[in-house]
Amino acid sequence: MTDNRRALDAATLARTIRNIRLIAFDFDGVFTDNKVYVFQDGREAVRCTRSDGMGLNKLTALGIRSVIISTEPNPVVTARSRKLGIDCIQNCGDKRAAIEEVAQEAGLGLDQIAFVGNDINDLPVLRAVGLPIVVGDAHPDVLAYASYQTKMTGGNGAVREVCDLFEQILRSEGE
Amino acid sequence: MTDNRRALDAATLARTIRNIRLIAFDFDGVFTDNKVYVFQDGREAVRCTRSDGMGLNKLTALGIRSVIISTEPNPVVTARSRKLGIDCIQNCGDKRAAIEEVAQEAGLGLDQIAFVGNDINDLPVLRAVGLPIVVGDAHPDVLAYASYQTKMTGGNGAVREVCDLFEQILRSEGE
Amino acid sequence: MTDNRRALDAATLARTIRNIRLIAFDFDGVFTDNKVYVFQDGREAVRCTRSDGMGLNKLTALGIRSVIISTEPNPVVTARSRKLGIDCIQNCGDKRAAIEEVAQEAGLGLDQIAFVGNDINDLPVLRAVGLPIVVGDAHPDVLAYASYQTKMTGGNGAVREVCDLFEQILRSEGE
Amino acid sequence: MTDNRRALDAATLARTIRNIRLIAFDFDGVFTDNKVYVFQDGREAVRCTRSDGMGLNKLTALGIRSVIISTEPNPVVTARSRKLGIDCIQNCGDKRAAIEEVAQEAGLGLDQIAFVGNDINDLPVLRAVGLPIVVGDAHPDVLAYASYQTKMTGGNGAVREVCDLFEQILRSEGE
Repeated sequence: MTDNRRALDAATLARTIRNIRLIAFDFDGVFTDNKVYVFQDGREAVRCTRSDGMGLNKLTALGIRSVIISTEPNPVVTARSRKLGIDCIQNCGDKRAAIEEVAQEAGLGLDQIAFVGNDINDLPVLRAVGLPIVVGDAHPDVLAYASYQTKMTGGNGAVREVCDLFEQILRSEGE
Repeated sequence: MTDNRRALDAATLARTIRNIRLIAFDFDGVFTDNKVYVFQDGREAVRCTRSDGMGLNKLTALGIRSVIISTEPNPVVTARSRKLGIDCIQNCGDKRAAIEEVAQEAGLGLDQIAFVGNDINDLPVLRAVGLPIVVGDAHPDVLAYASYQTKMTGGNGAVREVCDLFEQILRSEGE
Repeated sequence: MTDNRRALDAATLARTIRNIRLIAFDFDGVFTDNKVYVFQDGREAVRCTRSDGMGLNKLTALGIRSVIISTEPNPVVTARSRKLGIDCIQNCGDKRAAIEEVAQEAGLGLDQIAFVGNDINDLPVLRAVGLPIVVGDAHPDVLAYASYQTKMTGGNGAVREVCDLFEQILRSEGE
Repeated sequence: MTDNRRALDAATLARTIRNIRLIAFDFDGVFTDNKVYVFQDGREAVRCTRSDGMGLNKLTALGIRSVIISTEPNPVVTARSRKLGIDCIQNCGDKRAAIEEVAQEAGLGLDQIAFVGNDINDLPVLRAVGLPIVVGDAHPDVLAYASYQTKMTGGNGAVREVCDLFEQILRSEGE
């Protein structure tokens, strides 16, 4: 695993994407703008984007699996993943162990997995997977560990952009 | 029906608008900013604009009917359309079939109908109606199918802008 | 009352402000960003700014009364005005009649009243009062009827800016 | 205590930070964007940033204590501070007295305390502490009283930026 990766050139990015079979997404800051609405009774809400669902449907049609990996157990993550119809791993103190479990269960190598994150708690996974992606407004400390940074920010089209990118590459001929 | 339309020149746009008798609106991304607030119990909320209601009142005064067409059944769409006092068709897997049903029921041709959308699931309707409109922040993949793109983004004045445009054209003399 | 007013020069603005004894505020689009959060059961919420409260306290200290005038009856307006500790007139179909009632009750002339609005339903009041103010993101159709437009937009500091302006003028010496 | 301070040069800022043992934060406008969501029944909600929690964990690891000081008693402040796992002083009409009590209880001098605020009600504390900080969108009237202004705005990374700054200084060698 290499640190301080740089953005891939177009051909290498396309080749890497063709090898990916599963995309794991962090939740807060990726499916959301990393904000949380706090109510008087302590309950929380988050803001997601409708267009992400259309993107994930594309991935499914392309034979790419999607999964959400979130450190903190939170009912809003459960609610959103259920609505999106994708798997969700929560309450994993160790995201790196979680991604390896996902890989093993799916019979995939870590090089066949992409991960989309946004902050320093994603570093162990970003360093482990074949295609580490960060959102447009990721924390500066993680930028060096990503092979691709989305133009869109978290909760504002970043997930859809990743899905559209995969569709564009996988639907195009050869390299 | 022609694909890959271009923005109409002012005179053609005015002539097209004078022929329209009904405007159908997508909900998410048009009446809203395409975001959804997700609560711990799975309930959802959306953010709309107060000024849209004043615009729809103008349309009614001009004799133009308004209707919301939404693929997914969602209580927030019901709640908002009731508050706005306009009709609402939900849970229509096929938006194209829904718009044709609306046209038939109103005794109108599809060329007398405008539609305002924002994403790829609106394509079948955008390609069918007389005046296909997309919002300022519509997905790039639908821009080519619109005769008019609003300056304002969804949930931030796009609906009001359409209503103001119709008022301006219909209240002006001749062509 | 003159239509199509222009922004006042600094000296005239200061003289006009020194004559004002009461400021009436529209609610939606002035205390809020003109957005409404719609829940599945039809309930609504709005987004206000904490700093407005500090501004209104300044007005009170300066001997200027504040009142909210809102066309539509809405529990969120009641809730917010109660929290801010200012009077609130709701469910007034005719805002112009409401402002005249406020003036009469306070023993003031309309020239001693300022009004802060944002859209076309505020026109009858903007045209009637001594100091018509609109927010930074007011609808283009009302700009010509204002003597002052705030730099800040509705729900993002516009109310505070008006209060700060009054404080600055009223605390300065002479003209 | 000096008024009208200016931003510190890098070396003085670093030396000042090395002396700080506790950071007190205002809540509204610092942990939030100074907005409040108002519901029909008068309940309120605020919008916070997930990344702040990661920043506060860094402070704890560096041996710096954190505390929230809020004038108004509000259940959302209680809820958020509990989630973040930091102390919270509410319902203190006099913030200056509160900060002195915090200092005494912790056995610290006011010069060993930093405070992060955003508006005029923070002035008595900003003028009292060793390192007065304001957020990127603080009210103009408090800017002159800060030794440091964050680039990020309240509720949008300001707290995290302060934590990252402390980490950067305290982890670097010497001066």
